[in-house]
Amino acid sequence: MMIKAVEKKVVAPAGLIAHGRGEAFDYLLGEETTLPSMKAIKAASAALLIAKQPVISINGNAAALCSSELVRLAKITGSKLEVNLFYRTPERELAIEHILKEAGADEVLGIGEAASARIEEVFSERRRVDPRGIFSADWVFIPLEDGDRTEGLSKMGKKTIAVDLNPLSRTAQAATITIVDNLIRVVPLIISETEKLKTEPIQKLKEVISTYDNRRILSEVMLVMEQNLRSLSTKGVSTNEDIK
Amino acid sequence: MMIKAVEKKVVAPAGLIAHGRGEAFDYLLGEETTLPSMKAIKAASAALLIAKQPVISINGNAAALCSSELVRLAKITGSKLEVNLFYRTPERELAIEHILKEAGADEVLGIGEAASARIEEVFSERRRVDPRGIFSADWVFIPLEDGDRTEGLSKMGKKTIAVDLNPLSRTAQAATITIVDNLIRVVPLIISETEKLKTEPIQKLKEVISTYDNRRILSEVMLVMEQNLRSLSTKGVSTNEDIK
Repeated sequence: MMIKAVEKKVVAPAGLIAHGRGEAFDYLLGEETTLPSMKAIKAASAALLIAKQPVISINGNAAALCSSELVRLAKITGSKLEVNLFYRTPERELAIEHILKEAGADEVLGIGEAASARIEEVFSERRRVDPRGIFSADWVFIPLEDGDRTEGLSKMGKKTIAVDLNPLSRTAQAATITIVDNLIRVVPLIISETEKLKTEPIQKLKEVISTYDNRRILSEVMLVMEQNLRSLSTKGVSTNEDIK
Repeated sequence: MMIKAVEKKVVAPAGLIAHGRGEAFDYLLGEETTLPSMKAIKAASAALLIAKQPVISINGNAAALCSSELVRLAKITGSKLEVNLFYRTPERELAIEHILKEAGADEVLGIGEAASARIEEVFSERRRVDPRGIFSADWVFIPLEDGDRTEGLSKMGKKTIAVDLNPLSRTAQAATITIVDNLIRVVPLIISETEKLKTEPIQKLKEVISTYDNRRILSEVMLVMEQNLRSLSTKGVSTNEDIK
């Protein structure tokens, strides 16, 4: 799927390396959504529901992995969709816009000259943002984001929801809510969680967010990884053949 | 470097994903050669020196990362060089042969019709081997190998030296000697180790191999990864901003 997406110019070759890094960390998670990640998903869902101007930032990997689900999440939460690329070329922007429109998106921000505003302190092409989108958003959902940009959004006063399989990455560390899990598993869970939470009173949603502690969640996820590494290593080495 | 190698058809796009997985595990190693890996490197060096027909198997990622060093290692240890690809195309074979010849290789096996023998139980194009090379080798150095092929070589009675950053991969588990480390760091270390060991009596080299315990080494490496994950997580989460 990811390799086909490179052929279609949706994913940049460097996106494959990032995808592989994610696969390794997912392996340490046991390739399933952990309990602490479920708490982050709940807080993220509440945040998207109470946000005044939520925006979902889409890059090549996110578009390749789950464009339909991201479009659906945008509709349920009233979020705008904005394309934002590290390796920005008109060809890739249009390829990703095309995928999102095929998946049912009415409007896709951030294409071409529409990305006229700047995030200060970000030096790649990802600094370019749409004044109608990320530039004026309060909460930004940033699946698979790079560290510079997450820090840049933070400095602009944006609240961010990151999805990143490496709990120690700068993105994971700088985001307001960090979901350490595979995007493919995360988006359907946020969709079902927002559907559950949207009938709750706003006070309840605010409470979910104010009682959420991202640092503790990150520690808990790392503990799960440590435990998995330990139990995998106990299982793993017993099958090894002997040299002698 | 890896992305340019894809443009030159040396590395397959899937090789970038594998490279990314390696990067994540290298991060858990602290991006340095660990003490247990040094022991594996010493055993590997002794094995290449005592081997009767050692062969170094080269795939796209290995060629892209350190072709000069691999050619030098082949010369020092009297190993043959054989190209062996998971995604075999004549174009890629020739591109890798070209790189190795540029790096000073006199002969490169496994190109085109030369790869006429088969490893049973391996179903990708990697089953094809050269009768003058891997097919008749006693020890095969397989940097960055896939699990099926390592198991296939094992079943053929070959002894294998694998370099794999994931200590739990099937390759790591099936190899005779597994070096869990970054290939870029490993090859220069094997070169200097073989230069040290080659003046030793053969009995001493055999002792290095017979006292080597791959299962114990793999356990020790995993312990290092666990400890690194723990210490990274303690450092990591303290810099996180608070949501409240």
